[in-house]
Amino acid sequence: MRGRAREASVMAAEPATQETEQEPLLEATIRRIVREELERAAKRDPASRRACLIASKGTLDWAYPPFILGSAAAAAGMETSVFFTFYGLNLLRKDFERRLAISPVGNPAMPMPMPMSDIVTALPGMKALATGMMKSMFKRKGVATVRELRDICLESGVRLIACTMTMEVFGYSKEDFIDGVEFGGAGAFLSAARKSHVTLFI
Amino acid sequence: MRGRAREASVMAAEPATQETEQEPLLEATIRRIVREELERAAKRDPASRRACLIASKGTLDWAYPPFILGSAAAAAGMETSVFFTFYGLNLLRKDFERRLAISPVGNPAMPMPMPMSDIVTALPGMKALATGMMKSMFKRKGVATVRELRDICLESGVRLIACTMTMEVFGYSKEDFIDGVEFGGAGAFLSAARKSHVTLFI
Amino acid sequence: MRGRAREASVMAAEPATQETEQEPLLEATIRRIVREELERAAKRDPASRRACLIASKGTLDWAYPPFILGSAAAAAGMETSVFFTFYGLNLLRKDFERRLAISPVGNPAMPMPMPMSDIVTALPGMKALATGMMKSMFKRKGVATVRELRDICLESGVRLIACTMTMEVFGYSKEDFIDGVEFGGAGAFLSAARKSHVTLFI
Repeated sequence: MRGRAREASVMAAEPATQETEQEPLLEATIRRIVREELERAAKRDPASRRACLIASKGTLDWAYPPFILGSAAAAAGMETSVFFTFYGLNLLRKDFERRLAISPVGNPAMPMPMPMSDIVTALPGMKALATGMMKSMFKRKGVATVRELRDICLESGVRLIACTMTMEVFGYSKEDFIDGVEFGGAGAFLSAARKSHVTLFI
Repeated sequence: MRGRAREASVMAAEPATQETEQEPLLEATIRRIVREELERAAKRDPASRRACLIASKGTLDWAYPPFILGSAAAAAGMETSVFFTFYGLNLLRKDFERRLAISPVGNPAMPMPMPMSDIVTALPGMKALATGMMKSMFKRKGVATVRELRDICLESGVRLIACTMTMEVFGYSKEDFIDGVEFGGAGAFLSAARKSHVTLFI
Repeated sequence: MRGRAREASVMAAEPATQETEQEPLLEATIRRIVREELERAAKRDPASRRACLIASKGTLDWAYPPFILGSAAAAAGMETSVFFTFYGLNLLRKDFERRLAISPVGNPAMPMPMPMSDIVTALPGMKALATGMMKSMFKRKGVATVRELRDICLESGVRLIACTMTMEVFGYSKEDFIDGVEFGGAGAFLSAARKSHVTLFI
């Protein structure tokens, strides 16, 4: 239609009109194309398809979030990295379960069978009691163990990166860690995180 | 079609000026338009208008950040979601204030009237003392209570989402929670977070 | 140039071929240009060049991550801000080292020379012992002190922002803080964070 109209106006020897008519059209068309491409680009926004987490804690309770969120992100089709640093490094060690405990001391938000002051929660045996309680609570409800969640992460392609600086400080060697772990510093974390919408320090 | 029009105008013997002027302009014009559109798109970058927080702790001190940042984000015109998981779930319970305490044990950074070792801060009554101290400190300075901040969040359209997996594990039911709460899993969090620049694990 | 070439080909009465070839090219060309510009824009994606951290804890162990990540982000050429709030405010005080301690209580993930229950780690002197141990561990491995890392941040242009609301609540004044610190509220944090891919609550 537009072509015909223009052709006709050309025939009528009015090229000036044709030009003034064509010019706004041209720009409108370009803007439409640009917006289409932008919309397409926004949909495939690569940052929305990447998650980059830091796991900095090594207790039983804080072991769940990085592995649960990491495996959930991978299941949602996201390129996922978890960087383990400080106490979190424990979660990648072969013997991690021996050290995986929780302490109710200093955390009055922990659900306990009865109110206790910290002088009680600090008593010998309370750490083992709380750790056992939490493990059985998760097991009863059919939540995977930390080891199972870690395996799911590895199987679904989540990159598990051990912080080399912490390894140095704590005196850990590469042999202490499970197979499939990568090694890197803060730079490795940042180069993945700067391209990700989801970045969490756990 | 458009080609024909141009051909015709060439025939009309005004082509040289029109063509030489239009052609170099064309690519430059397109690039200008594209850059304009990109700049416009960057300004309305939807990720910069969304915030997605995780509230994972349930003590009095850590109750403030998710509600303060959540209400501040909403006040700044951002689409805001806060996902409550683990101990953080407590903050959405009807009876949350009964459990909202802090313990000075294990946190030497807490401002205290005098230096104390943890064997002292762990004594019966110290938790109530520290909790009372912090509440009155905030009140004296005119900071809203946690309950008031939570109400502000709800009134300003912040989505408060309770983690269904934690509910299951801790044995909570929907009736335990205040009105206006949504329920969802890690997937619900990720689908909001992957579109947000501001993502924080508190 | 191209304009002239086309004109010439029109003169040579071969317009049909030229035109049919050019026409599909036109939209294709625009799309190519748009994609080039989008790719260029993605590469200079300003959000990927900004990091915005919150430092909320004031103990020795949690003093490292904001300064290590902050200086690493600056070294990677990123515009970096660290917002200090709650106990984290301590890290910007002139006398911060006096208060910079760690407690092994409530953190069974802390590497200790032997397993201890919290009733032992809570004893007088244990905080000083753990603090000394961690300091010497970092020193032996050549990691900079917290003070040195903070200086590196300031020298490399990292913005260190003290939370004015916390200052008010804890009764701190601007004179308590080191030179070079900025002052701002949650709004200051959000206006930087909403433009950054890397946003972490430490």
